[in-house]
Amino acid sequence: MKWVFLVALSITLCSAMPRFPRIQYKMPEQLPPNYVQSWFTSFVDHFGSGIETFQMRYFSKNTYWTNNTQAPGPIFFYCGNEGAIEMFIENSGWIDQLASQMGAAVVYAEHRYFGQSMPFGNRSFTSPQNLKYLSPHQALGDYAYLLQNLKIMYYDAPVIAWGGSYGGMLAAWFRMKYPNLVVGAIASSAPIFHFMGSVNPEEFNEIVTNDYAMVDTNCVPYIKTAHDILGVWTRNSTLWWQLQEIFNTCTEVITYSTASNIINWIDNALTYMAMTDYPYETNFLEPMPANPVNVACSKFNNLADDATDAEILAAIRDAVNVYYNSTGNNTCNLVDQQYDNGLGDNGWDYLSCSTLVMPIGSDGVHDMFLPQPFSISAIDSYCLQTWGVAPVTDYAKIFYGSSTNPLGPLRYASNILFPNGSLDPWQSGGVLESIHANSVIGFIMQGAAHHLDLRTPNPSDPEDVVTARNTEKQLIKYWLATAK
Amino acid sequence: MKWVFLVALSITLCSAMPRFPRIQYKMPEQLPPNYVQSWFTSFVDHFGSGIETFQMRYFSKNTYWTNNTQAPGPIFFYCGNEGAIEMFIENSGWIDQLASQMGAAVVYAEHRYFGQSMPFGNRSFTSPQNLKYLSPHQALGDYAYLLQNLKIMYYDAPVIAWGGSYGGMLAAWFRMKYPNLVVGAIASSAPIFHFMGSVNPEEFNEIVTNDYAMVDTNCVPYIKTAHDILGVWTRNSTLWWQLQEIFNTCTEVITYSTASNIINWIDNALTYMAMTDYPYETNFLEPMPANPVNVACSKFNNLADDATDAEILAAIRDAVNVYYNSTGNNTCNLVDQQYDNGLGDNGWDYLSCSTLVMPIGSDGVHDMFLPQPFSISAIDSYCLQTWGVAPVTDYAKIFYGSSTNPLGPLRYASNILFPNGSLDPWQSGGVLESIHANSVIGFIMQGAAHHLDLRTPNPSDPEDVVTARNTEKQLIKYWLATAK
Repeated sequence: MKWVFLVALSITLCSAMPRFPRIQYKMPEQLPPNYVQSWFTSFVDHFGSGIETFQMRYFSKNTYWTNNTQAPGPIFFYCGNEGAIEMFIENSGWIDQLASQMGAAVVYAEHRYFGQSMPFGNRSFTSPQNLKYLSPHQALGDYAYLLQNLKIMYYDAPVIAWGGSYGGMLAAWFRMKYPNLVVGAIASSAPIFHFMGSVNPEEFNEIVTNDYAMVDTNCVPYIKTAHDILGVWTRNSTLWWQLQEIFNTCTEVITYSTASNIINWIDNALTYMAMTDYPYETNFLEPMPANPVNVACSKFNNLADDATDAEILAAIRDAVNVYYNSTGNNTCNLVDQQYDNGLGDNGWDYLSCSTLVMPIGSDGVHDMFLPQPFSISAIDSYCLQTWGVAPVTDYAKIFYGSSTNPLGPLRYASNILFPNGSLDPWQSGGVLESIHANSVIGFIMQGAAHHLDLRTPNPSDPEDVVTARNTEKQLIKYWLATAK
Repeated sequence: MKWVFLVALSITLCSAMPRFPRIQYKMPEQLPPNYVQSWFTSFVDHFGSGIETFQMRYFSKNTYWTNNTQAPGPIFFYCGNEGAIEMFIENSGWIDQLASQMGAAVVYAEHRYFGQSMPFGNRSFTSPQNLKYLSPHQALGDYAYLLQNLKIMYYDAPVIAWGGSYGGMLAAWFRMKYPNLVVGAIASSAPIFHFMGSVNPEEFNEIVTNDYAMVDTNCVPYIKTAHDILGVWTRNSTLWWQLQEIFNTCTEVITYSTASNIINWIDNALTYMAMTDYPYETNFLEPMPANPVNVACSKFNNLADDATDAEILAAIRDAVNVYYNSTGNNTCNLVDQQYDNGLGDNGWDYLSCSTLVMPIGSDGVHDMFLPQPFSISAIDSYCLQTWGVAPVTDYAKIFYGSSTNPLGPLRYASNILFPNGSLDPWQSGGVLESIHANSVIGFIMQGAAHHLDLRTPNPSDPEDVVTARNTEKQLIKYWLATAK
């Protein structure tokens, strides 16, 4: 009976872990040229009062800027999201390129509680009291204050907000809530509707599954079978030594927790590869080949029809190592450490537990994963235990609107572009269609993964991405012309 | 030398006292019929996360409401301002009357930190930590949450936001920031531009002066002369016994602080009478006659051409007692206590020190007061000393826009009506002209004081107020029709 109890408890804990996948960037070794780091004194709390301030970091580049008092070049303002700001500079080369064409200054603002912008230094994550200022609203407050200040130096130049993923949500919300500071926003792959009551939590994993299904017909069945095998093996402690051997884990598989983490480790990789299924080599946590989903699926090609369970597991191990270890440098697999690589993850985990609860689940029928329905009560208990907070599930709905309300706030917004990628699972919460023509525009770029349009143009880019970048350029010109 | 030093110190302290006049209502003995008190559990901090909640109070009245699932009557939602919510129910009879005509439900929400809506009970004002959640942004967060909840009960009925004075600012901002929750706003006498950099701080007192000048040509010169006399007498301690006798003060005039408080006591009354110069009897702190400014000016009528200084001071004492003591019940004058009558004033003082620093000053040339230029450094030191906070003077400008920015956020708003009174000094920060026709409309009601339009219709109302109420009714109908 003791064993059964332990398993039951572990399942609960395991499914309580919120899984909000995001691209895990590696810190770039050096930035593109001429980005200068600066610090700005902002208020810890913008919505009450207080004399507490902190230093937020931003980078700016003025080499392209049209320095003309009467007709200054615009400011391209990137709304930093969940990570050190350098990573977004490194992975948004299109913004830099367009700035050079349009005489724009470029500013990248770092999101509070990420990178080096810590409101309470190295005590920022030590208590709920210190963490309570981590929210999208407060981050937008920082950006508003910073911009108000910068505009003085830039002759009140018009501002275009940019962002990808959560940064795209911030860019869109920035234009919605501060239309006087920002003339328009490019909100790439921004799942602004991915909240309770306005999203189907299982759609995300259906899209991931579909990305693999499109590659070849055997891929999803093998991944599904591998999950079924793991569902059995992880619950049978006499088979754990085999899991340890096949998956070459860095830690011994002697607890249910480690055994089941193998499944999480696999699912993270499968999801991230779908999100970052770019048509050329990229460099995230580790270098990844072009079209990683195709490469991953190819690992099942050599399986015989009568492949053993162990062979199928070995194949999925190789498939996910396209993400974790394409260089072959890792000598073992860190199945226990995927959730724990630095402050960035902590900040995102806190946001996922407070104002940004984005429901994701799987039913095991319409997707290739084991069934793990989204459960708000599991999230609740995890968040209370981990951060001492209760999720505010209707925060985004109330403050920024939802897709289900026909009179939602986007109806009142203008000058926001929402590009989405057809391969990107986050399109499940995106603005896929225009809300009103020429003003709040959403569309899908065929063949594109998560905010591919923001990356440096590449000969392998799908046609739709080339078109999208051109649309961005034309729209920005139009917004700037009509703002005057 | 010691005496000189004391005086100098006192002058500094005295002028450091922020003077942000507001109508001082008396708590009504009973409410209009059928208003039911309820409590709503709201979050202490809407913009981070946390599990702390508090009980906010609201009143609602459903007797007029068209209870029809398909076409429910609208909700008239009053955005409570700085005081116990009963006072605004009592003094906004027009909202009730229009609700009866339009089949509307009426909801009056109490502003946090006022009345009985105390986030930390009777410890709400005891520390900067407990006070930091007192701000317009947080109050609007309460209203958004409350409305989201109420709309379920009211079949998602469309909502009209109402408010007068600071409540009008909240109503306008509510529509600007939450257009999905509110289809339109009546923002009566709302000085949403009365902030640093977008208002002339001395205009307020010029308008007050003008209200008295319009009554008769002698009134302002007498008030001015009385101020000049007081400027001398309060600084000469050998004359304090005479001040005590003439002004019949409840406390002895034995300090410069009490002596100079006589001037503040006078100026408050002169200002409040201008703000509440209604054409019929009203009942604020004490009952006031119709057209109190006229009645006050009449107190100078019997002065001889060679009236003594003491006679002129006695006349201004009688003039301001039109405000403080028209019943004659007070046996002495509480010149030291005007700033200290209950929690409502504390909350307003804190707001004036944090997010709502509304600059007011006098130059003694274009107004009838002693020169007291607006000084942000004086405000700074007062606020730090009193509340431990530093004013955030650009809060409203950044979050809600200002009149000086041609691309201000009102350009992006719609469905807001800004009625202003020609007698009301707060028009100095009001929206006096339409920003765009049929959508964001400002105008002046000739002969009206502070948000007279919201009060119960009265045969003595000026014609412009009757017209304004009709405009409000027609616009609300139009907003409701176009919202569907």
